[in-house]
Amino acid sequence: MDATEEIRRLKYRYLRSLDLKQWDEFADTLTTDVQASYGKRLSFEGRDAVVDYMRTSLPPTIITVHQCHHPEIEVDGDTATGTWYLDDKVLVLDHRLMITGAAFYEDVYARTDDGHWRIARTGYVRSYEAMEKLDDSWQLTANRWSESTPSATTT
Amino acid sequence: MDATEEIRRLKYRYLRSLDLKQWDEFADTLTTDVQASYGKRLSFEGRDAVVDYMRTSLPPTIITVHQCHHPEIEVDGDTATGTWYLDDKVLVLDHRLMITGAAFYEDVYARTDDGHWRIARTGYVRSYEAMEKLDDSWQLTANRWSESTPSATTT
Amino acid sequence: MDATEEIRRLKYRYLRSLDLKQWDEFADTLTTDVQASYGKRLSFEGRDAVVDYMRTSLPPTIITVHQCHHPEIEVDGDTATGTWYLDDKVLVLDHRLMITGAAFYEDVYARTDDGHWRIARTGYVRSYEAMEKLDDSWQLTANRWSESTPSATTT
Repeated sequence: MDATEEIRRLKYRYLRSLDLKQWDEFADTLTTDVQASYGKRLSFEGRDAVVDYMRTSLPPTIITVHQCHHPEIEVDGDTATGTWYLDDKVLVLDHRLMITGAAFYEDVYARTDDGHWRIARTGYVRSYEAMEKLDDSWQLTANRWSESTPSATTT
Repeated sequence: MDATEEIRRLKYRYLRSLDLKQWDEFADTLTTDVQASYGKRLSFEGRDAVVDYMRTSLPPTIITVHQCHHPEIEVDGDTATGTWYLDDKVLVLDHRLMITGAAFYEDVYARTDDGHWRIARTGYVRSYEAMEKLDDSWQLTANRWSESTPSATTT
Repeated sequence: MDATEEIRRLKYRYLRSLDLKQWDEFADTLTTDVQASYGKRLSFEGRDAVVDYMRTSLPPTIITVHQCHHPEIEVDGDTATGTWYLDDKVLVLDHRLMITGAAFYEDVYARTDDGHWRIARTGYVRSYEAMEKLDDSWQLTANRWSESTPSATTT
């Protein structure tokens, strides 16, 4: 597998483990001294700070979907840069809120001592982010984090 | 074209022919004994069962958009596995309902006797699925399956 | 970088510069005699016509998100064809309207005299396009083109 594909897979693992709330695997995608900046309001220094924030902010009642598109990756030896186009949706079930948005990510990757690529710096600038109240008619018909979701749909 | 790219293209053809309701091409992406499991409620054994279900469930009044992201594909000789992140939307026009969702696919692929890769097993676990009534203000401005869609937008 | 990857990157640059309203970079992704056809209502001949239309139609009060998936690219010497699956969203802030849609792109690419691939023909057929009024509860919490967006969300 070439470095570009390894880095794409790294980003997929980062987003998958984030949305599946698998915090050990999520932590493993970051360098120990990662710098992360999500929009204007949230910045973190170091793996522990990022993971702690995500773990405490994203309980099972908050469903997140982070999908990244359009990888533009440049590899230079053991470092690399990458641009991605994020599409994300956050369902805050307890408050029946939905947050949607899009952003351009600018990442830096490093091949660390064990030979694996990790995220050394990550950040994005949002095109937009919006919050809305979910309409009364809106109902969950499946929820990975709840066994008791009613089966109301026929498709 | 290497096997990984062939398998990505297979998945794109599967999803494109599904959303375009091109059932012969859709059938050709599956092995004859494919096993398919879409969420907890829908499981099928064999190509004919999958195709029959889709063909009868998805008339032109139901518009589907299935887009898969983040391919993580592992090839081992003539078999392969793949994980994908689905984003989907279903418009049930007759009832003015919209279903949205996200899921992680786990697929198995096989290179069959004619040298082509096909889907041997497919299934997903949904992060969430939701159903909502389309707001009164919501109106179609284009519809591939209807010639008479009004042209109300200027963009 | 092989031709297939160069063409994917070309498409990402085209969509990124479109959504970021970077019209010089956008123009550079097109051949001078490009033919563009967006749905049934909008067709253009030549780079200047495309760029002029986009520049005047998409001021900062109109936020666009165009993301393309499922690249199926065939290279034949210095020309190539490509199919993509578009997912798009347009926020018309002044009128609190949102347009959403999906479409299959059919593109033709050409390697031009300077060795760079450019878009020679582009067009799509929409699966659907819909327009809706944004609900009263819907509010922007980030906007790349506005410094004064209130920070109302905590995520």
